Amino acid sequence: MHQAARNDGLTSYCFEDLEVGMQAEYRRTISQADVERFAEVSGDVNPLHLDAAFAGRTRFEGRIVHGMYTAAMISTVIGTRLPGPGCVYMSQDLRFLAPVRAGDEVVASATVVELFAEKRRSRLETLCRVGETVVVRGEALILVPSRTQLQDVADAG
Amino acid sequence: MHQAARNDGLTSYCFEDLEVGMQAEYRRTISQADVERFAEVSGDVNPLHLDAAFAGRTRFEGRIVHGMYTAAMISTVIGTRLPGPGCVYMSQDLRFLAPVRAGDEVVASATVVELFAEKRRSRLETLCRVGETVVVRGEALILVPSRTQLQDVADAG
Repeated sequence: MHQAARNDGLTSYCFEDLEVGMQAEYRRTISQADVERFAEVSGDVNPLHLDAAFAGRTRFEGRIVHGMYTAAMISTVIGTRLPGPGCVYMSQDLRFLAPVRAGDEVVASATVVELFAEKRRSRLETLCRVGETVVVRGEALILVPSRTQLQDVADAG
Repeated sequence: MHQAARNDGLTSYCFEDLEVGMQAEYRRTISQADVERFAEVSGDVNPLHLDAAFAGRTRFEGRIVHGMYTAAMISTVIGTRLPGPGCVYMSQDLRFLAPVRAGDEVVASATVVELFAEKRRSRLETLCRVGETVVVRGEALILVPSRTQLQDVADAG
C-alpha cells in the first residue's frame, strides 16, 4: 500500500490505494473544558452538557458530551488519516447509542466497506467507542482523489 | 402553544406541545478563528480547513469550514430551541452539499415533520443554509420529554 508523502504528519490515500477492510482510528480523552469550548464554538449551550444540577435531573443523571462533538471525531479520522487530506465528505449518518462523559476516552474509527471505482467513492463504516461500548454508529460516503489529483494538491514540502 | 419557563433564555417544548410545521433556527457567522478552535477541539486538522496554500490547490480553491462544524449547529437548534433542553438526540443524517467559508453566515433550521405519540419521538427536517444555498441537508430523530417529565427536570429558578 502506498500513501502520499506529507510534511504535516497526516496520511493521504488516493483512491487507487484504498482496499476494503482498511481501517484507521483517532483517540481523544474529552475534558469538561473541551465540552465548554465545543459549546462556545457551536453555540450549543444545552444545560445537559454544561449544568451539573440540570443534567443530574435527566435520565443521564449527569452532564454528557455533545453527541455532535463525539461525531466530529469521525470527521477527524476521515479528514486526517483515512483517506486523509484531499478527500471530499459527501454524507454521514449518525446514531447516538450511549452517552459520553467528560473524562471518557473516545475512539473514533473508520473502515472501508465499499469502493465505487467509476465515481471514486468509498463507503466507510464509522464507529465511536468508549471502552467496549459503541456510543455512535454510522456510515460515511466520501469522494477520494485519484493518484494524479492527489499529487496535484500534495504539499510542496 | 406552551413552553416550559426557563431562566437561561433557552426554549423547551414538551412532546404534547409539538406540532408538525413548527420551526426554529440558529444563525452564526463563522470566522477563521472559529474554524481553528473547532480544529483544536475536534482534532480535525485537515489542511483543507487551515492551510490556505493547500486548500487553494483543491477543487474548493480555498479553505472551507469543517462540514461537521456546520452540522453541529443543527444540534444547537435542537438542543436549545426546538424542542430544547430535555430532549434526547437519537439519530442524524447529513448530506454535505456545498462548501461554507469563513465569513459566511450559516442559518441552521429544524422543522417538525412527523410526531410518533406512542414513543414520544419527533422527526425533524434539518437544513443549513448560506444565503439561498442549502449547504447541509438531513433529518434528525429525537426523543421528547412529556410535560410531566419536562417539569421534573426544569430549572428550579
